[in-house]
Amino acid sequence: MSTLLIVVPASWAEPCKAALAEVAPHLRVLLHDSDAYRAQEIDYVLTFRPPERLLKSLPNLRVVFSLGAGVDGILADPNYPVHIPLVRFVDRTLSREMAQYCVMHVLMHYRMQRFFDRAQAEHAWRQVLLPKSAEDMRVGILGLGEIGTLTAQRLRDLDFDVGGWSRMRRQEPGVQSFAGDGELGAFLARTDILICLLPLTPETRGILSESLFAQLPNGAFVINVARGGHLVDADLVAAIDCGHLSGATLDVFHIEPLPEDHPFWTHPKITVTPHVAAISETRIAAQYVANGIARFERGDPLANLVDLRRRY
Amino acid sequence: MSTLLIVVPASWAEPCKAALAEVAPHLRVLLHDSDAYRAQEIDYVLTFRPPERLLKSLPNLRVVFSLGAGVDGILADPNYPVHIPLVRFVDRTLSREMAQYCVMHVLMHYRMQRFFDRAQAEHAWRQVLLPKSAEDMRVGILGLGEIGTLTAQRLRDLDFDVGGWSRMRRQEPGVQSFAGDGELGAFLARTDILICLLPLTPETRGILSESLFAQLPNGAFVINVARGGHLVDADLVAAIDCGHLSGATLDVFHIEPLPEDHPFWTHPKITVTPHVAAISETRIAAQYVANGIARFERGDPLANLVDLRRRY
Repeated sequence: MSTLLIVVPASWAEPCKAALAEVAPHLRVLLHDSDAYRAQEIDYVLTFRPPERLLKSLPNLRVVFSLGAGVDGILADPNYPVHIPLVRFVDRTLSREMAQYCVMHVLMHYRMQRFFDRAQAEHAWRQVLLPKSAEDMRVGILGLGEIGTLTAQRLRDLDFDVGGWSRMRRQEPGVQSFAGDGELGAFLARTDILICLLPLTPETRGILSESLFAQLPNGAFVINVARGGHLVDADLVAAIDCGHLSGATLDVFHIEPLPEDHPFWTHPKITVTPHVAAISETRIAAQYVANGIARFERGDPLANLVDLRRRY
Repeated sequence: MSTLLIVVPASWAEPCKAALAEVAPHLRVLLHDSDAYRAQEIDYVLTFRPPERLLKSLPNLRVVFSLGAGVDGILADPNYPVHIPLVRFVDRTLSREMAQYCVMHVLMHYRMQRFFDRAQAEHAWRQVLLPKSAEDMRVGILGLGEIGTLTAQRLRDLDFDVGGWSRMRRQEPGVQSFAGDGELGAFLARTDILICLLPLTPETRGILSESLFAQLPNGAFVINVARGGHLVDADLVAAIDCGHLSGATLDVFHIEPLPEDHPFWTHPKITVTPHVAAISETRIAAQYVANGIARFERGDPLANLVDLRRRY
């Protein structure tokens, strides 16, 4: 019998354990925070942001499963044991929730919903035409992986002019692909609404900064649904306040929960949501982990392995 | 040379005339409000809500073109000359703008955006899971014509459980079709988010009433983007205030602009927008009318003719 150690906050750990008991009755499941265990007992770990050195201390660890789509919280441990395979959480529900969130906030910006919200607050009938047609509204997706591609498809189907940037060129009908550092400038220059869906790595940390914003056209709007670490908070506020950017929607922050006195909460052109664009469901994650372990123990290759050199 | 009379408010009339001068230089275009003309000169009329008896007074009138997708404003004239063909404005841009609006407001309800807006106003981090998955959120479209069908497709592609009601049964993959009065109850009973896209006719006036709301499941949400005349305002407020409905988004009203003291403006569970879901563009409407006149004068059948018995 193999043993999985769950290393996530208590509110997630108990439901994960209960879900695993249903879908993988032969798996022994322990909770890092509340169960006693010996390091050598652990075969697998399910985690999001493990304590530093914990993973390295498990001598018989075979696979690490991430509870989130991003693995930056796991690789934040400088002692991550690089010989142990790390599996990202890739799930259709997670991807489409993220795509829904992006579609909604692109539409809210394009269709001026905040302008109409203010008008309603003032009991004012302010009928205006949309400033441009959807074909002329250029949405740019920074990070064209599973989630970025699904988001691009949905926005394309709503008639937006969609482009995407990724390290390698992607082939997606109706989506203009920009690849590598050499094409980032051209991608930004044609982007009216920028959606950040990048993995957080040393290369992408702080990418949403003054110098990137300066390459967007005047009036551009920014949506960050990736990680707070992608954004230089002060640069965003400065770019909005000087009138270069028209606003932003942010779901992720350097510190979460976002501190009560952070200027984002009250900025009239910034929408804040509490990291809800896509939340891993414990039931689905449990099934995902159970399937992964079953494949691994049959000797089949693991899907969605992280490239530890690239860190995503 | 044939003559078109434009009978719309001045802010629309001048841009329509200018656009027609470009696309139909051989057409003589007169404005009802400002040009002198004799009744027998007029071959065609472009209008939205003509003065009563005006159309009847034009002895050589051949076709009436509606500037809006709905023709209730034109048929409100009890003296409409029933032997004159009436053409609805059907346009891809108009349909997809309406679909976008519906997608945005379905997502805002499903994804609890107003809850997060209030949390932001209070600087409160209130992370919650979506109450159900998109497949379990049943959207129901009342009126499955061109616009309703496009809206259904877009919502289906975002994984909602979509049904539609229409007089005749429709075949649209992934959209459950309900047809006729006999199936209205079953349609309402499975609808968590109701979108009204019906034409306004004597049969549909006031359809969004206490008795219809009572057939929706508890907690249902209502979106009206058709006509204010479909809704019994007091019944909606009562159904929300007693807790049966969870809220509404309204783009159309009995009186527009919505009077400043109307209770909709301040209701915490009602979003008001100023009839902006889809606005006919004069440039596109001018091209549509020019094409229609050209077809008619070549002897080709007119597209999008209104059935004057059904009134849509």
